[in-house]
Amino acid sequence: MSFLRRIIPPQGFRISSRPFKSFKLPGESLDESTSPSLIHGIHVFYCPDEVGIVAKLSECIASRGGNILSADVFVPENKNVFYSRSEFVFDPAKWLQGQMEEDFLKISRMFNAISSVVRVPSLDPKHKIAILASKQDHCLVDLLHGWQDGRLPVQITSVISNHDRPLNTHVNRFLERHGIPYHCLRTTRTDKREKEILDLVEDTDFLVLARYMQILSGNFLRSYGKDIINIHHGLLPSFKGGHPAKQAFDAGVKLIGATSHFVTEELDAGPIIEQMVERVSHRDNLQTFVQKSMDLEKQCLSKAIKSYCELRVLPYEDKKTVFC
Amino acid sequence: MSFLRRIIPPQGFRISSRPFKSFKLPGESLDESTSPSLIHGIHVFYCPDEVGIVAKLSECIASRGGNILSADVFVPENKNVFYSRSEFVFDPAKWLQGQMEEDFLKISRMFNAISSVVRVPSLDPKHKIAILASKQDHCLVDLLHGWQDGRLPVQITSVISNHDRPLNTHVNRFLERHGIPYHCLRTTRTDKREKEILDLVEDTDFLVLARYMQILSGNFLRSYGKDIINIHHGLLPSFKGGHPAKQAFDAGVKLIGATSHFVTEELDAGPIIEQMVERVSHRDNLQTFVQKSMDLEKQCLSKAIKSYCELRVLPYEDKKTVFC
Amino acid sequence: MSFLRRIIPPQGFRISSRPFKSFKLPGESLDESTSPSLIHGIHVFYCPDEVGIVAKLSECIASRGGNILSADVFVPENKNVFYSRSEFVFDPAKWLQGQMEEDFLKISRMFNAISSVVRVPSLDPKHKIAILASKQDHCLVDLLHGWQDGRLPVQITSVISNHDRPLNTHVNRFLERHGIPYHCLRTTRTDKREKEILDLVEDTDFLVLARYMQILSGNFLRSYGKDIINIHHGLLPSFKGGHPAKQAFDAGVKLIGATSHFVTEELDAGPIIEQMVERVSHRDNLQTFVQKSMDLEKQCLSKAIKSYCELRVLPYEDKKTVFC
Amino acid sequence: MSFLRRIIPPQGFRISSRPFKSFKLPGESLDESTSPSLIHGIHVFYCPDEVGIVAKLSECIASRGGNILSADVFVPENKNVFYSRSEFVFDPAKWLQGQMEEDFLKISRMFNAISSVVRVPSLDPKHKIAILASKQDHCLVDLLHGWQDGRLPVQITSVISNHDRPLNTHVNRFLERHGIPYHCLRTTRTDKREKEILDLVEDTDFLVLARYMQILSGNFLRSYGKDIINIHHGLLPSFKGGHPAKQAFDAGVKLIGATSHFVTEELDAGPIIEQMVERVSHRDNLQTFVQKSMDLEKQCLSKAIKSYCELRVLPYEDKKTVFC
Repeated sequence: MSFLRRIIPPQGFRISSRPFKSFKLPGESLDESTSPSLIHGIHVFYCPDEVGIVAKLSECIASRGGNILSADVFVPENKNVFYSRSEFVFDPAKWLQGQMEEDFLKISRMFNAISSVVRVPSLDPKHKIAILASKQDHCLVDLLHGWQDGRLPVQITSVISNHDRPLNTHVNRFLERHGIPYHCLRTTRTDKREKEILDLVEDTDFLVLARYMQILSGNFLRSYGKDIINIHHGLLPSFKGGHPAKQAFDAGVKLIGATSHFVTEELDAGPIIEQMVERVSHRDNLQTFVQKSMDLEKQCLSKAIKSYCELRVLPYEDKKTVFC
Repeated sequence: MSFLRRIIPPQGFRISSRPFKSFKLPGESLDESTSPSLIHGIHVFYCPDEVGIVAKLSECIASRGGNILSADVFVPENKNVFYSRSEFVFDPAKWLQGQMEEDFLKISRMFNAISSVVRVPSLDPKHKIAILASKQDHCLVDLLHGWQDGRLPVQITSVISNHDRPLNTHVNRFLERHGIPYHCLRTTRTDKREKEILDLVEDTDFLVLARYMQILSGNFLRSYGKDIINIHHGLLPSFKGGHPAKQAFDAGVKLIGATSHFVTEELDAGPIIEQMVERVSHRDNLQTFVQKSMDLEKQCLSKAIKSYCELRVLPYEDKKTVFC
Repeated sequence: MSFLRRIIPPQGFRISSRPFKSFKLPGESLDESTSPSLIHGIHVFYCPDEVGIVAKLSECIASRGGNILSADVFVPENKNVFYSRSEFVFDPAKWLQGQMEEDFLKISRMFNAISSVVRVPSLDPKHKIAILASKQDHCLVDLLHGWQDGRLPVQITSVISNHDRPLNTHVNRFLERHGIPYHCLRTTRTDKREKEILDLVEDTDFLVLARYMQILSGNFLRSYGKDIINIHHGLLPSFKGGHPAKQAFDAGVKLIGATSHFVTEELDAGPIIEQMVERVSHRDNLQTFVQKSMDLEKQCLSKAIKSYCELRVLPYEDKKTVFC
Repeated sequence: MSFLRRIIPPQGFRISSRPFKSFKLPGESLDESTSPSLIHGIHVFYCPDEVGIVAKLSECIASRGGNILSADVFVPENKNVFYSRSEFVFDPAKWLQGQMEEDFLKISRMFNAISSVVRVPSLDPKHKIAILASKQDHCLVDLLHGWQDGRLPVQITSVISNHDRPLNTHVNRFLERHGIPYHCLRTTRTDKREKEILDLVEDTDFLVLARYMQILSGNFLRSYGKDIINIHHGLLPSFKGGHPAKQAFDAGVKLIGATSHFVTEELDAGPIIEQMVERVSHRDNLQTFVQKSMDLEKQCLSKAIKSYCELRVLPYEDKKTVFC
């Protein structure tokens, strides 16, 4: 199965039928906001390229009284594919949810879209994620804090770990206090507990591997079928596999980094979403390499997840991502 | 007069009537390019915001067989202005120059555009600039080398300096060899030679102050009427005025920078185009502050000019710039 | 009183007389460590410059069987001052605490040291700090988490806020769980509660203003007499005072930053310890400016405190700091 | 032969016996300098670690009336090696050249130094280098300009290229005007012209490969016996070998870089001296990847050479470098 099956499916997220509330969204001005009946929408579109796509998309939005606030269009040279990501405001009383879905679907068919997704942050449910972690929990903790602060716009359905945490740890208490189920599924060389994990994560929109040290099988990837974001504690494609900080340390590099990417069958080789670096020198020892690496991992993973939730991450060819 | 008078005038650059040649443009793939009859165009548009602008612009391009390759749309919150910058390919045999101008002019009127500019890099003449310099010539030299390498897509009509360079310097020989007129206009406290400068730079598209140490009067700015890009050797708005490296050194900052910006009547306060920083520490003395600053100035000015030539720099409110 | 009175006093920290334990220190290799009877020491020295200081200091360490692992010496040009920071290992059974203090004191007198401080991280108590905060608690929360993770090598004696936090907030529960006293001292225009604060922070080594929005009077600074580290949410010397993110936003800068510095009588003008920047563009609105700024503040303040605890921050002239 | 033989030989540079002149050195204050009879010296020392080295070195300098301005000492954990780099001022009338050599030699023997080098920039001749280039000459041109500006403190004995440049190119005219011999030694699959190159570069202190596309044999490396600095247009250890920009482009990375390193028998694997990165995104095509890469290569190579000339680059284990 090609990687493309793992992107946000063309049918998008179900726009809930509950009455809308115009929330103050990240990015909205702190002074007087847009008219209270206008809310934000994000639309991403990905199809074979041809003349007239932008025209049709923008006409559609305009015809419903929507106003485009920002748009990114990307047509890579000689690849015959078209990507766009638009942000617009509209009056949900005038452009009803069902109608919006239908309008974009019509354009999807017109252009044989590979993907067409619309998201209305103030109406749609947050992305549901499960976080997988192992012994090193700095990324997990950072995500939990970010979620608590409202900086990470997700709903955490569960935390799954293959490492036992004593009951009185900060993480355990946090999860308990916030009612987030915690599952310890110890793995062995022969048993990766993948079936149980699949059951636990069925009702998620994507998965986050927060320094989860087990390799998910191709079977798992196909069965889960949705996107999985991983953080690799090295600057890919350097230092794949284990102990990248030590590999980097031994290699005498002057820059270390972290990479967040989509998980594919090939280890540490999926499309890269975000990378961050920091300088090191002879004065850094292995421990400070690791510490700097941990800080980069937290920032890099966090940013990747936010970009993904904002529909800024689309796959492009085998290895690349667009709009991020 | 508001700053806006200094942006690229709505009528844009005259698309020459010479037969087109489809050149290989920066940004084009190194493998097989687009069909030889297709060439690139860039269109920037700036008008009061309303529904339907993107639709009209993209329909226009599509109706002429043009294909949008990339687009940036920006509608700042609550400001009621609209900016777009589109790159597209088209067949100049099908969409003639005159027709293109007329088409975009029609949309300009429709939306009361403040500015609408189209540029076809392979057909239009390069931007004509004059460079003003003083004693410190590192920026001037860097621009000349960049121009020679083809990295700076401009035509240099003249170099004007208020500092005498001995005849056998590298700069003088370079200018002589390349047939670029060099004018030494010594200034005094009371005589800035502005009238002579104005005469010399009349036939330019914009000016570049490459560490030109004289302050141009409001009169000059109004008379010249076109954009002037300056490089300030400090991270504005810190350290305006003279000796910013020394000001920074004395202030004990850990980061120094350079800023390129448009020149307005207020010293070092025009809209910022680009800024770059570098770290300093107690181990830097004034001399290394200055050296690092010089390197930043060269990179920052060079980048600002390139962005400007690619129509990536539009004014936004008094102080800001868009798309860069 | 000159700023110099606020640096680490010449007598340094009392090396406790409790039996030492050779802990695994940050920076120690993860493989087999140095001989178990050797522990780390840090010595900083600051005196008028003359020939022979490094020789005397290193002889002293060598004569006691100590081995210098790293050293930084800095003698700014034409200033006639000498700074050094050395890290060494020694056998505390051979170089007893009392002897060490005496040895360094002797050299201090020999060279009329302005400051001479030795610190043995595995023996000496952690720095005791009080954290002052206001309504914006992102920095406070980040410091608490850093402390909990062991990344911030301090002992928090209390948290003082001029803003009331409801009892069931994350911060309150955290402080309660960890037994850290929390004091809410509401301030008014006329009453800054400084006397009460002074009483509460008497037994601290330095103070941290984590976005504490009250200006401490000169009186307070003199009475407290020790160092106070502040985080300013702007890239000083730009944007002093209030709402620097908004100031930066309006100024149209392309880089925003945060600055941690020592507090002096002049607002936002004390010696700078650390600065960090991030890029912004027209696509950032005030809210994302603020969000990026908040992330920088957390990192910048955290780093400044760590550097300070590692004796990497010494004052140099009025405005500068050394070794950081 | 181990890599260590390629470092600056223990006997250092012959301090010439010509009368000294106290020049204004980079790094000296622009205001009143140190006493006109004092000049700068740099000493680097590398030996097996033991107690007392810093003491002996600094005593030595002090005993001759020298004053240490800055010092870096580095003793990596558990490696039993010692590195130091000191900058000091001294009166050459009081500490004669011959005496200085003898003094440092004595300490070298005392500690079985692997390397001990002293350099007096105002007296010693500049490092003599030959630059090898191929078709891509952006690095070569940048080095020549840097040399011309005085930013690159070397003497260029010759430029050797395996690619023919027409007689009227900028490079050729430049070399001719400055009297720098230019040798075109075309290479083939079977003939790398190494013997001729060795003859041409015999009288150099080190070599610079400025995008020289031929692989130098182990034989050449051993015969030349001195250091060779290379610039690799990729962020090692990623993308070794050819076309790293294209490799990076295809890999979908978000950061590209350049690496300057010492040449060893293993391709692109010698100790790294400096690395620099820049961000890329989907909006970059192969051409802009290459352009950004070229800019990084120029800066990175230039910085590496400067650091090397300032004795800031010492080998540490197989892969690392110290003090840079």
